[in-house]
Amino acid sequence: MTRVLVTGGGGFIGLPVLERLVGEGREVDALTTRSDPPELLGVRWHQLDLADDAALEQLIATLAPQRLVHLAWCTDHGHFWHAPENVLWVQRSLRLLHAFVRSGGRRAVMLGTCAEYDWSSLGGALSEATSELAPATLYGAAKDALRRVADAYARQEGVEFAWARLFFLYGPREDPRRLVPSVIRALLAEQPIATGSGEQLRDFMHVDDAAGAVVALLDSSVVGAVNIASGAGVTVGELLDRLLQLLGGPELVHRGALPERPGEPRLLLADVARLRDEVGFHPRWTLADGLAATAKWWEAQQAPVSPVR
Amino acid sequence: MTRVLVTGGGGFIGLPVLERLVGEGREVDALTTRSDPPELLGVRWHQLDLADDAALEQLIATLAPQRLVHLAWCTDHGHFWHAPENVLWVQRSLRLLHAFVRSGGRRAVMLGTCAEYDWSSLGGALSEATSELAPATLYGAAKDALRRVADAYARQEGVEFAWARLFFLYGPREDPRRLVPSVIRALLAEQPIATGSGEQLRDFMHVDDAAGAVVALLDSSVVGAVNIASGAGVTVGELLDRLLQLLGGPELVHRGALPERPGEPRLLLADVARLRDEVGFHPRWTLADGLAATAKWWEAQQAPVSPVR
Repeated sequence: MTRVLVTGGGGFIGLPVLERLVGEGREVDALTTRSDPPELLGVRWHQLDLADDAALEQLIATLAPQRLVHLAWCTDHGHFWHAPENVLWVQRSLRLLHAFVRSGGRRAVMLGTCAEYDWSSLGGALSEATSELAPATLYGAAKDALRRVADAYARQEGVEFAWARLFFLYGPREDPRRLVPSVIRALLAEQPIATGSGEQLRDFMHVDDAAGAVVALLDSSVVGAVNIASGAGVTVGELLDRLLQLLGGPELVHRGALPERPGEPRLLLADVARLRDEVGFHPRWTLADGLAATAKWWEAQQAPVSPVR
Repeated sequence: MTRVLVTGGGGFIGLPVLERLVGEGREVDALTTRSDPPELLGVRWHQLDLADDAALEQLIATLAPQRLVHLAWCTDHGHFWHAPENVLWVQRSLRLLHAFVRSGGRRAVMLGTCAEYDWSSLGGALSEATSELAPATLYGAAKDALRRVADAYARQEGVEFAWARLFFLYGPREDPRRLVPSVIRALLAEQPIATGSGEQLRDFMHVDDAAGAVVALLDSSVVGAVNIASGAGVTVGELLDRLLQLLGGPELVHRGALPERPGEPRLLLADVARLRDEVGFHPRWTLADGLAATAKWWEAQQAPVSPVR
């Protein structure tokens, strides 16, 4: 088995990706800025800041990984859409890819986002082959630009490059300020919570499935952009209903109390034909089971609900 | 007058840009890797490698320039189209822009290339507003990606960002391996020279005009991409004819001896309406006068013709 280098291994999708990789018996080198990464059999952690070019180049030259899964990015809830750090993450990602290619890397997978697509004129499921790209945020523009130059560079150098374009995720360890955990935690604590109208149709995928899809993409020879999503749409209101069925407390949810966010499309669905037919990946989790397991995970945390940071 | 920071000031277009800026009475800080940059009244040189992030950030924080003209890039003749360093120039340029914005920068001009456009389906003059972008080289892809993320970032931060999309240049100090100087030098030395068929139609602009256009763009409030070109087409064969009229020696030129380069379009012309009407720039040089002056410049060098490196 070839050695895999993973960045962002301590993150929301990073941990399940590592679990999948070591579950396959792979040797994994994982980069993290955390001083206390979780012990995982088969994972060798390297504490490293990707902003440290010299340290990064030295480590990659030493490890000479053949495969790369680059998950690290700025993800601070609410801020990442417009954070100037997006620009630095483009440059760090390019530095990383350049070092990887120079040290003999063969195949790289990086994370994209549904925010690369043009959200202003959505008619149906978003397709890698035919839908327009027109990011409306710096986050989307940064990911879009990274893909363009990384793809051209990798193709020229004969390195395989795949782009895992994530849609909406949920699952254990998600930032507690995001939709699913904030609702679950409020219901568990019997505290009121305000939401939007809930009419937006979205594709929610369990993070374990997203991690499985990323690893399946790594293990395939597919190159270019691949939507990582369940292929099934649900309105945010329906998702709330499912959580209320699981946890009770409908009187706690104040629907429509939050305004619509500007630029939020009504409908954001993924065409998953590439993921299903070319990568050969099929999700394991239904939304009902995934939400139930996620609610259980938060319940098990038994952490006191702290005010939103 | 606001302070201007210029990168690549020692290069082919960099020197004429500096001359224009100091001609306007501006104070210019110029970055160069050269240890012996030419003395120019009004230019303060800083010897700095843009790969040195820490030194760059410190210098920009110290200078706090309000305007930036970023000309530096890898330009090694023949190699720059596919040089892996293009990837690093994207990351250096983003680091530079990020530092510039953070230190209070207000307006930045960076260099693009006609190689950002889709060359596979050319029907007429290339327009910033309507022509498709589809770079076929890593150089073009890198510039295209840089523009996308830099433009989104600058717009979000309220900084003006303009993109000077260069076509074909000629003039003093051009790399002697490129078309115009290699022909002039061969004719001056009465040595034979092989060329292609010469049927390609191109837009050639004197580098002093290109520098003037870049400075006019800097002085304007135009944002986004602007073609920097003369607006007049000439076939490479006609350009050769003009040089032969100036210098004699038609028997030295072996036309058609070099094969066509793959991917080279027949026709590559620029729509210059934006440059002319919005920036308000008009070229000073005719092609005839520009080539004559360039030939004189090479003659004055009186350097022995050395073999192509």
